[in-house]
Amino acid sequence: MSEKIGIGVGMVGHAFMGRVHSQAWRSVGAFFDLPLAPRMAVLAGRSRERTSAAAAQLGWADVETDWRKLVERDDVQIVDICTPGDSHAEIAIAALEAGKHVICEKPLANTVAEAEAMVRAAAAAPGRNMVAFNYRRVPAIALARRYVEEGRLGEIRHVRAQYLQDWIVDPGFPLVWRLQKDKAGSGALGDIGAHIIDTAEYVTGQRVVGVSALTETFVKERPLAEDSAGLAATTGGAATGAVTVDDAALFIGRLSGGALASFEATRFATGRKNALRIELNGSLGSLAFDFEAMNELWVSEGDSGFARILVTEPGHPYAGAWWPPGHGLGYEHTFTHEIKDFLEAIAEDRDPAPSFADGLRVQQVLAAVERSAADASRYTVVQDASVVEDAS
Amino acid sequence: MSEKIGIGVGMVGHAFMGRVHSQAWRSVGAFFDLPLAPRMAVLAGRSRERTSAAAAQLGWADVETDWRKLVERDDVQIVDICTPGDSHAEIAIAALEAGKHVICEKPLANTVAEAEAMVRAAAAAPGRNMVAFNYRRVPAIALARRYVEEGRLGEIRHVRAQYLQDWIVDPGFPLVWRLQKDKAGSGALGDIGAHIIDTAEYVTGQRVVGVSALTETFVKERPLAEDSAGLAATTGGAATGAVTVDDAALFIGRLSGGALASFEATRFATGRKNALRIELNGSLGSLAFDFEAMNELWVSEGDSGFARILVTEPGHPYAGAWWPPGHGLGYEHTFTHEIKDFLEAIAEDRDPAPSFADGLRVQQVLAAVERSAADASRYTVVQDASVVEDAS
Amino acid sequence: MSEKIGIGVGMVGHAFMGRVHSQAWRSVGAFFDLPLAPRMAVLAGRSRERTSAAAAQLGWADVETDWRKLVERDDVQIVDICTPGDSHAEIAIAALEAGKHVICEKPLANTVAEAEAMVRAAAAAPGRNMVAFNYRRVPAIALARRYVEEGRLGEIRHVRAQYLQDWIVDPGFPLVWRLQKDKAGSGALGDIGAHIIDTAEYVTGQRVVGVSALTETFVKERPLAEDSAGLAATTGGAATGAVTVDDAALFIGRLSGGALASFEATRFATGRKNALRIELNGSLGSLAFDFEAMNELWVSEGDSGFARILVTEPGHPYAGAWWPPGHGLGYEHTFTHEIKDFLEAIAEDRDPAPSFADGLRVQQVLAAVERSAADASRYTVVQDASVVEDAS
Amino acid sequence: MSEKIGIGVGMVGHAFMGRVHSQAWRSVGAFFDLPLAPRMAVLAGRSRERTSAAAAQLGWADVETDWRKLVERDDVQIVDICTPGDSHAEIAIAALEAGKHVICEKPLANTVAEAEAMVRAAAAAPGRNMVAFNYRRVPAIALARRYVEEGRLGEIRHVRAQYLQDWIVDPGFPLVWRLQKDKAGSGALGDIGAHIIDTAEYVTGQRVVGVSALTETFVKERPLAEDSAGLAATTGGAATGAVTVDDAALFIGRLSGGALASFEATRFATGRKNALRIELNGSLGSLAFDFEAMNELWVSEGDSGFARILVTEPGHPYAGAWWPPGHGLGYEHTFTHEIKDFLEAIAEDRDPAPSFADGLRVQQVLAAVERSAADASRYTVVQDASVVEDAS
Repeated sequence: MSEKIGIGVGMVGHAFMGRVHSQAWRSVGAFFDLPLAPRMAVLAGRSRERTSAAAAQLGWADVETDWRKLVERDDVQIVDICTPGDSHAEIAIAALEAGKHVICEKPLANTVAEAEAMVRAAAAAPGRNMVAFNYRRVPAIALARRYVEEGRLGEIRHVRAQYLQDWIVDPGFPLVWRLQKDKAGSGALGDIGAHIIDTAEYVTGQRVVGVSALTETFVKERPLAEDSAGLAATTGGAATGAVTVDDAALFIGRLSGGALASFEATRFATGRKNALRIELNGSLGSLAFDFEAMNELWVSEGDSGFARILVTEPGHPYAGAWWPPGHGLGYEHTFTHEIKDFLEAIAEDRDPAPSFADGLRVQQVLAAVERSAADASRYTVVQDASVVEDAS
Repeated sequence: MSEKIGIGVGMVGHAFMGRVHSQAWRSVGAFFDLPLAPRMAVLAGRSRERTSAAAAQLGWADVETDWRKLVERDDVQIVDICTPGDSHAEIAIAALEAGKHVICEKPLANTVAEAEAMVRAAAAAPGRNMVAFNYRRVPAIALARRYVEEGRLGEIRHVRAQYLQDWIVDPGFPLVWRLQKDKAGSGALGDIGAHIIDTAEYVTGQRVVGVSALTETFVKERPLAEDSAGLAATTGGAATGAVTVDDAALFIGRLSGGALASFEATRFATGRKNALRIELNGSLGSLAFDFEAMNELWVSEGDSGFARILVTEPGHPYAGAWWPPGHGLGYEHTFTHEIKDFLEAIAEDRDPAPSFADGLRVQQVLAAVERSAADASRYTVVQDASVVEDAS
Repeated sequence: MSEKIGIGVGMVGHAFMGRVHSQAWRSVGAFFDLPLAPRMAVLAGRSRERTSAAAAQLGWADVETDWRKLVERDDVQIVDICTPGDSHAEIAIAALEAGKHVICEKPLANTVAEAEAMVRAAAAAPGRNMVAFNYRRVPAIALARRYVEEGRLGEIRHVRAQYLQDWIVDPGFPLVWRLQKDKAGSGALGDIGAHIIDTAEYVTGQRVVGVSALTETFVKERPLAEDSAGLAATTGGAATGAVTVDDAALFIGRLSGGALASFEATRFATGRKNALRIELNGSLGSLAFDFEAMNELWVSEGDSGFARILVTEPGHPYAGAWWPPGHGLGYEHTFTHEIKDFLEAIAEDRDPAPSFADGLRVQQVLAAVERSAADASRYTVVQDASVVEDAS
Repeated sequence: MSEKIGIGVGMVGHAFMGRVHSQAWRSVGAFFDLPLAPRMAVLAGRSRERTSAAAAQLGWADVETDWRKLVERDDVQIVDICTPGDSHAEIAIAALEAGKHVICEKPLANTVAEAEAMVRAAAAAPGRNMVAFNYRRVPAIALARRYVEEGRLGEIRHVRAQYLQDWIVDPGFPLVWRLQKDKAGSGALGDIGAHIIDTAEYVTGQRVVGVSALTETFVKERPLAEDSAGLAATTGGAATGAVTVDDAALFIGRLSGGALASFEATRFATGRKNALRIELNGSLGSLAFDFEAMNELWVSEGDSGFARILVTEPGHPYAGAWWPPGHGLGYEHTFTHEIKDFLEAIAEDRDPAPSFADGLRVQQVLAAVERSAADASRYTVVQDASVVEDAS
């Protein structure tokens, strides 16, 4: 270990994503034989007090209260962006221009234009870039792709992908930043819909080439949250503010290889906590996955019925680095795998997958979904409702 | 039993649907305390030899080789139509005009116009009418509707309904009548898509008011089947013929009560044999069903997780008539329940649900799906594919 | 059909078992190409009124109020015994001596001695005999045996079999005949434990050769039921009576082929309705089954994980006679299959499996379980409880 | 954080258990607000080279090649024993006598006598002691205990506990230390059977008071492994050696509160990778758990069916420290929880549960199982096999 070249990491943001990225940086070296030894150099956040407390708990050596200082520090070679989407482009471009490698949370940006700028900046900079679609690093998802690549499912005909959560079902849930368009870009669509677009494209190796979409905001006003206080003024000081993003997005489409696909992202699926689900049907076989049981991949080949494969065998993606068969992994491991792959790509001087270009690709699909959903002419009315009676 | 009024039944068709309807007519009186005692009077089919053999095996007292004779017999009060969709309208209208009660297999017809004619004929006739959407009579589906009606799920926000089969995945599977537009009207859409439309509307009590759709025929030519021999001429005597219906249909839409819904019907879902699946998410709870495990309903209320309810308790719909808890029912029981409900409706001189009007309602949705799928302008292209690289 | 030789059936008893046997006799000819055409000739019960009503509903042509008359009727060639265990031996022996074929509900008898007498009577008589372990005729169970026979699981090392119900958990549930030793012989042990003994032996092809057992009666007094009124006198006219059978039986043992096995039968497994479960582990593979999902067999071969096989394919046992793949069967079908096999055995002049000899074999295991459970010396006390503290 | 009192940890052994304990020591402070800040001070192993490499990878500051030196270092206040069972007593007693706190892997020892000596040493020493039954710290298992404690299941009647693995099914798998009695004490019994005994007692709050047992060694000779080379001499230098422990252990018993229990531990359950399964039935409800889906607890209360509870809610045991609902944990987290609880107990100057006394308690059950299994008189032969024919 001692002869390994160290590489300094600076992370921006220390909320949910910052906590899980920290665990990944802290653990990755104990399980994978890395080409570079990451050092958790510096953490940036707005409040010195809260950032210092977070750094102490999460294991970062130093803190900054201005991310611009972080991206220019000499002891930082990798910038890890864990902030809301509205700051991704600015931070990433600055970091790239400072010669750093950049890993950025998803969605890559809040608009296609921002994402394009990031891709251009990456192309012009020496650093490597990655967008953190962590679900690609679920061993079961990586194994699913392997099945497709090896042709075991044949020609893929159907993809149905859903990302179902229920954390804002309660109308009393406050107007947090993820429900504000200026910070989050979109709602369920960009937050979790982006994941299933990337997952579907990753697993099938095909691109979404066209869509037809519906979106909806079920709860249109919500109590202000601490971080939405600024919105109070815009609503006349009232106790509630407008939800400016979608609660749910639904779309069907075609993939570049000829498959039909359906997608659904919602935060209103009562009882579903983090159900990123994908099912593929090919001419030779099928597979199904649900992140709520993340160590399982269900595969049907030939006439054998769907088999539950515990993706914990030594030969399964990433799994050999951990525990014996049947000893499952958790959510955070997907980030550990992601960082391991990023470090390897940096050492080999290539961009990892998914890179910013992949992030842009997803952003384009998100934009197409929004265009389709906004255009009422794309929707076919069944019939004047008066002709037949109510469903009975 | 002896004092019950008998009622004569004549059935047209003795293939798959005829066999299962026969089992229902034969069994219903042993389990339900019926107001009318059905007599299996006469079976109609084209070949006297095959029809006679079927009648002997299935328990019908007499046979006819012309359905017109059947609908005019005095010992027939109920006409049960188990033929392909292209003959439904003609037989049903003749039976209604002859004063008979009519139960007709689904889809009600091959076109909206035919279905409308049937509804008009029914309105003008003394007999009662029913369309055989048998899945409404799965105890778990009926229990699902009860949950919605009682408000236990709150306001319904999401419906996702799929009907997945795989019996024509093999390109060598022949061109049977269900793959010919003139006989079947449509493919997966009318055959199994019709079921999930009706099921979604029945369970939610809402109507599909608009859709956006895609359809596809994956295998465009198939070997001729025995009953597709006539097509040989049209293809120059060749050994194959064109598949003239959809292999799969996908659509999203809105329901009259504000829910977002997605539907998918396909015969290319490898490993899925008869997976009529429906999942509902409401503001207070959710439920999920898969016909491949037809005795189970999964329900989540409050924060309790999804519970597997074995729908075999005495208080569950239809279940009390059968066996003790945990002793499940099978596919054919849904037809027995349907016929029990039809006989009760006849005795009470009212139309049962689903009536022909419900069949027409589904037909209108099918037609809207076809219109949408045929109109390329309703589809949003993501972006010129050359801009970004392939998914990696 | 018309040229088939008819065979008259007389059934004794018309409660739960009588109802399901009737459905089997009524349906079997419509689905299987039988060598003999069963006629539902006569039903015997104690009350003329109730028996006549049952016959009318269930489709029996005539009634008797004395089973002795039924077994001597010329129009009866098969006697079907659906009474509690205390009358099995007497009826079966009389029927055999009258030259009839006999199918008898399980357990074969209430004691080994009775069962031995039945086997002797069968050996001396011309008629064929069958004991109604219907779960052998679940397609998934028959398929499980096929897997073992074909060697696909290798050498069987482990069997774990459970039959879990919960219908007497409530202490207010009355003292029905199944809770009275003189009528039922034993409790959960003979009623449902008998089924898992037979199922384990059938699937593995091995015999239980030794056991170590525990039994328990959790609720020792219960309110009198209608049919336990006679017990009131013995308890001084009080409103409750003693439960004289086991509520639960647990045993481990060895099978003749070297497997270790565990068995558990209980009516106190809250939430389990009819969970006849069996799991086998062999040197090459494993399988698992739960009757609550009776159309599914879970199979693991090689390193493939457990696959859910829907046992509804044309090539699966019995399944080809019914519906297309994925259209499941119910509880009653196991009896239809049983009767089909019985009729074939009669036509071929051989005893079917399971015959009375198999019933005796199970009875011997039941007796060994009772002997073991009654012998406290077979039990190893862990240690004086004072030495260590309570589990914490 | 900075004001927290540090506490030095020394760990003995760096194989599987050492790796997972290291990850726990490394991570615990980032997620839990600890009263003491653990320092990973020193790692002991036999080979300096391998121990140094392990220390570098796993994050230990220093190494020793003699555990005796480790237990006497001033910078070590906690000794963490991750060696095979044959050295537990010696190391633990020395550490206790040196005034250290001790956490020891399970089973506590290889014999009851050793375990008793450890309990005596612990009673005489100032340090705190814990035995590492990590499965108590699965959130779902801890939640299960909460259900029982709160009385939601009523009086517990049944426990069925299994620990099923398959890693030695292949007869070519070598004779590793876990298959040698002198090192491991027993086979599946002590290794995984110990876990289900502790889990059953922990969840129910009852003790195993008596048992009846069977054990078996299916594969009696195996190729020598690297660490079994010493055995070669005893078998004359041959390439194989005798397996001296059980491959599987099966027992039934009674718990102190009146429940009936069955236990099974095996390494021959093909297709089961790490299936620690437990099912409880109480008078009011039931629950079921399988470690292969470790984030799920299945609960049935009243007549609601079994509900799958994702044990990832903020109010669930340990879960609030980690990720949002639906973002599951993995195997290693159970150790992190264990160490958090140990540190809290040390800070509060009390022994945690499970302490060495609990380890002794489990050891006594293991010993009773071995006594029972060794005594053929405790086993009831069914009947001379010649009386009836083979199962058919």
